[in-house]
Amino acid sequence: MNPSISRSEIHSTLRRFDAGYRHFLHETPLFKLPGAALGISCKEIWLKLEQLQTSGSFKARGMLNRLLSNPIPKSGVIVASGGNAGIATAAAAKLLGVPCEVFVPTISSPAKQARLKALGATLHVTGSAYSEALCACLERQQHTGALLTHAYDQSEVVVGAGTIAAEIDTQANAAPDSVLVSVGGGGLIAGIATWYADSATHVIALEPELAPTLHAARGAGEPVDVQVSSVAADALGAKRIGFIAWNITQQHVTQSLLLSDEAIMQAQRWLWQHLQVAAEPSAALGLAALQSGVYQPRSNEKVCLVICGANLDTKALGH
Amino acid sequence: MNPSISRSEIHSTLRRFDAGYRHFLHETPLFKLPGAALGISCKEIWLKLEQLQTSGSFKARGMLNRLLSNPIPKSGVIVASGGNAGIATAAAAKLLGVPCEVFVPTISSPAKQARLKALGATLHVTGSAYSEALCACLERQQHTGALLTHAYDQSEVVVGAGTIAAEIDTQANAAPDSVLVSVGGGGLIAGIATWYADSATHVIALEPELAPTLHAARGAGEPVDVQVSSVAADALGAKRIGFIAWNITQQHVTQSLLLSDEAIMQAQRWLWQHLQVAAEPSAALGLAALQSGVYQPRSNEKVCLVICGANLDTKALGH
Repeated sequence: MNPSISRSEIHSTLRRFDAGYRHFLHETPLFKLPGAALGISCKEIWLKLEQLQTSGSFKARGMLNRLLSNPIPKSGVIVASGGNAGIATAAAAKLLGVPCEVFVPTISSPAKQARLKALGATLHVTGSAYSEALCACLERQQHTGALLTHAYDQSEVVVGAGTIAAEIDTQANAAPDSVLVSVGGGGLIAGIATWYADSATHVIALEPELAPTLHAARGAGEPVDVQVSSVAADALGAKRIGFIAWNITQQHVTQSLLLSDEAIMQAQRWLWQHLQVAAEPSAALGLAALQSGVYQPRSNEKVCLVICGANLDTKALGH
Repeated sequence: MNPSISRSEIHSTLRRFDAGYRHFLHETPLFKLPGAALGISCKEIWLKLEQLQTSGSFKARGMLNRLLSNPIPKSGVIVASGGNAGIATAAAAKLLGVPCEVFVPTISSPAKQARLKALGATLHVTGSAYSEALCACLERQQHTGALLTHAYDQSEVVVGAGTIAAEIDTQANAAPDSVLVSVGGGGLIAGIATWYADSATHVIALEPELAPTLHAARGAGEPVDVQVSSVAADALGAKRIGFIAWNITQQHVTQSLLLSDEAIMQAQRWLWQHLQVAAEPSAALGLAALQSGVYQPRSNEKVCLVICGANLDTKALGH
């Protein structure tokens, strides 16, 4: 494990955010509900409303931390992602006033491309799949020397994500008994599991059946490529768990659970129709695990769900 | 002023909610942001995320309080409203297991009628305007003796709304310098102004230019009928300020400000596009007042906005 990924590093990063960046990076609210409010027989369910974060997802934390922790060359920053990581990088670059190049494949949606342009990023639309856009990005980076941000497999990105857990404990004045976390490349769960590594809080990994990077790696005993086709693939569509996440979750995450696309979509609609929370599919896995019974909390358990993003098509909300 | 509308009554009502009704009525989160995060030069802006409340608006507080504070006859409860007050009444009646009849005019949307039915209410679609539905409702109430709930002009409804302010103070560990409150019939502002009556907190009334019930009453020196046509009319469409609200605001509300529909819609879209907060037009008046400059806070001011509802057509969010 990278030695710079630690609870104390997460703490320092949160202090840095608090000291100078709260006009950009929000301390998102913690919404505490009795389990019965969501039809679950457990004591409390805490929703960390991280979908209200700048750039529409938790990724802004990691990307800002990455940019603050490194010298940024004149050529600025560079990233391959048409999704939340790209938007978060472009937003952080705009804040710091540095150039940003984003590589997206041709399949990326016009809406997301427009959003990246509105954030001032230079957009390169290239290749029919993500892997081709990434190749072009890495080639360009060799040429320009720009600072590369990675959607999940960089220590500053993982530490940035870990600040979510630090905030939860402060806001609730206590740690939850369990935290349910969606996994794509694993940056979010790596940060949260680092924070709770030496505590009694259980960190549970959740993935779509159709995008099981961590689950497949556990089966194989090492990171392996998986086929990805879930409704949540736009955010959880990594083909392989990141190395950092693999190492950290092997030590600190005991359960890895899978959810059907149907359960995910049902939970996404429930969040909107009953709580008026507009969340993207990847942010609905926690509620899906509870409502489908895939994760069954104890009756006195305090469960925390990280509602990690809201970059969604509002048509998915059902009305 | 009705003697039962007081800070201590609000306090008792909140304790009653806390003691037995938190599986239904949420303590909605307070989202604290520096003014700069919303482009405003004031110290802090607090968003009370009451759009996350059960039934999609703050009305659930008043309606539950009304039902808990009165004997409910076998015939149950009755209300005329196809909007937030009707939905909140039906939700509270369902919780308590009592029958609920709702009268709506023929113009009310099929979506809202479906929602009322899903909550188990008996729906009467009658009359081309709200006033006709109300007439039919009152006639029926004479006949059945059901408990009538009113969207704003009942003391229990006002006290219920006041619990929002009590929560804000507890959550922030302090009172805000000012609270910006949308006004239709005035139930919400009456409750909040009661809570802050003897404090240094200023309560500011906000209305659409095209639905100015309080502003017109202030001009005339008494409640008068106004023409209503604003984009926020589905929630702020009362024709005349309520008597309770008139009395309380005369004593405790110093400023009554008007917003254009354009400013309201722009703020609604801003909330979604920059903070991922899905709010209905009536809930966007606070931000509209700040962003249009109609209300100009001091540089060290802590301003609280009550995001009062989310019963919206998601098409209005702009993407």
